[in-house]
Amino acid sequence: MTSLNNRRIKILTAHLTSNSRINHSLVLREIPTGPLSPTHFSSHQSPVPTTLNNGQVLVETLAITIGAGQRAGLQGGATYAGATKGSTTSTMSGTGVARVLSSRFPGIKQGDLVAGGTGWQTFAILPGKTLTILPQGVDANLMLGALGTNGLTAYFGLLKIGDPQAGETVVVSGAGGSVGHIVGQIAKIKGCRVVGVAGSDAKCQRLIDELGFDAAVNYKSKTFRADMKAATPKKINVYFDNTGGKILQTALFRMAQFGRIVCCGNVSQYDTAKPGGGPKGVPGMLVNNQVKMEGFVVYNFVKEFQAAREEMGKWVRSKQLKAWTTNYNGLNQAPQAFVDMLGGKTKGTTIVNVGL
Amino acid sequence: MTSLNNRRIKILTAHLTSNSRINHSLVLREIPTGPLSPTHFSSHQSPVPTTLNNGQVLVETLAITIGAGQRAGLQGGATYAGATKGSTTSTMSGTGVARVLSSRFPGIKQGDLVAGGTGWQTFAILPGKTLTILPQGVDANLMLGALGTNGLTAYFGLLKIGDPQAGETVVVSGAGGSVGHIVGQIAKIKGCRVVGVAGSDAKCQRLIDELGFDAAVNYKSKTFRADMKAATPKKINVYFDNTGGKILQTALFRMAQFGRIVCCGNVSQYDTAKPGGGPKGVPGMLVNNQVKMEGFVVYNFVKEFQAAREEMGKWVRSKQLKAWTTNYNGLNQAPQAFVDMLGGKTKGTTIVNVGL
Repeated sequence: MTSLNNRRIKILTAHLTSNSRINHSLVLREIPTGPLSPTHFSSHQSPVPTTLNNGQVLVETLAITIGAGQRAGLQGGATYAGATKGSTTSTMSGTGVARVLSSRFPGIKQGDLVAGGTGWQTFAILPGKTLTILPQGVDANLMLGALGTNGLTAYFGLLKIGDPQAGETVVVSGAGGSVGHIVGQIAKIKGCRVVGVAGSDAKCQRLIDELGFDAAVNYKSKTFRADMKAATPKKINVYFDNTGGKILQTALFRMAQFGRIVCCGNVSQYDTAKPGGGPKGVPGMLVNNQVKMEGFVVYNFVKEFQAAREEMGKWVRSKQLKAWTTNYNGLNQAPQAFVDMLGGKTKGTTIVNVGL
Repeated sequence: MTSLNNRRIKILTAHLTSNSRINHSLVLREIPTGPLSPTHFSSHQSPVPTTLNNGQVLVETLAITIGAGQRAGLQGGATYAGATKGSTTSTMSGTGVARVLSSRFPGIKQGDLVAGGTGWQTFAILPGKTLTILPQGVDANLMLGALGTNGLTAYFGLLKIGDPQAGETVVVSGAGGSVGHIVGQIAKIKGCRVVGVAGSDAKCQRLIDELGFDAAVNYKSKTFRADMKAATPKKINVYFDNTGGKILQTALFRMAQFGRIVCCGNVSQYDTAKPGGGPKGVPGMLVNNQVKMEGFVVYNFVKEFQAAREEMGKWVRSKQLKAWTTNYNGLNQAPQAFVDMLGGKTKGTTIVNVGL
């Protein structure tokens, strides 16, 4: 990213000296009624405003990240709390890393790199209080990946809700995804047996070979239930659920007594206008095994974000935590990146390097 | 009960002097494939054994209680942990109050009144260590009701899992049942707004008039969802679920942020061989509102039973807690009592006074 950023600074300087800064943005064209497609988005151009109100910051987007939960925001009804509702009249929301062009917020100055809700656009005016200055030595990939919302979601969900103990078995679904691959690695750091659930044999193998998972199970296999059983000989103490659906149902019937299910996401039900029914085994299996199932939203832990980023940063530097990312180049690739990510074609955090 | 017990002592004395004590018992004839019927049971007679091993106690059953969870035990497969699995070869299991005829267990002596797993039979030989001597002044109705497994289930489920705070809204399903009517009253004692869910307008009215519930909602009404909404203007902080099914699903969509769902029973799915699917809203609504859903089994709190019984006993004596019971007379009425209870025709704890 560093060389990319340097190149951007030069381009940026050129922009600053011109009078014709244009904001390129993507807007949802219509609420999808089936699987999402790039044709659901349209691109727009508008002049970048030149005046800022008190407290506002003008930024130029360097990169954005796309999370599966955002798809839920496009379902139109009551939906995933972590996702801003999709709108067919305003720019797609989203988290990005950006460079500050001008600021009327104390503590943020021109040239700072910040993370915040840039949305899917090349320029944004944002409330300064909603922005986080990137720590020294942290690039956009890391800030949007392991140290970003997804990494923090993995950290707090696993440690605060799942509360894994050394020697316990932790299963995570969406294990190759932005949250999942971090969950599994933190569980390994905590001394757990870690089993990933992913959508192909190749992905499963990578989880074991590259990230040190103890086992991985392909949920698309006909022998999924038996494979899950074989991979969890002492049953499941913590199930970190990114998917809902049949994987959740399978895990429910494999929970150990006093097991904890961390409800993080429901990606199996996102890419549709008609989510399916709930999993069998609720509430019966919760009662039988005295299992706790708890939903959480990472923003509930915002006061602890900084401490978490410091600990995660140490793990990254010591190579205990590998941050997988899949990068796309150009804002106009964001819709395709979104579709690929929902289809399980990306690895780790999905990041779009935004062109000027 | 006292006069009944006195009468029993006389009959018992007659029995003790005879040589022909016969144990009457009920056995499940077949695993039901649809709704339970009294014809699923058969009655048997056998001589009462005259010799005890060390540690054993011979008792004569005075009364038994029947809980909805026992129906789950008759489903044949993986089922409710609180229920002993149904067997077509041995006496129906169940909790009762009994009088000790002879004892080879230190601390229990002839004439003591005890509670324990008598099963559906007139005499039983039981391990003394599994029996609880009735506290002074506690009769069979109270010991099997408010101070019995159902009352303790209400107490620990609500206070340990639900953790209701004064001013919060507590909703309980099966509100006129053995667990539910106690849950609601304890929640009132703790200063909560209490809403009961029951199966008829008359039951709902009794919850308000006789037990002081703030509101009650008939789940069989066509306007159930709207009624639930109207009864919970500040949403639901604690939902104590005895039923699962559509009531659980409705509550899921009405939970307040950081709400707690106490998974106690699943009676809507018991009286069938083919339980339905899980509730919509799992896991989505758990994530959205950061809701915790937790199953429990009362036997996990066995070390605190005595303290709980003391506190509940005080509430009973001070009339803060009313213990509803529905009594049947004669062991052979147990199957009908079971069917009536599952059909929502009984009020509070269902108790069968066992004839000799």
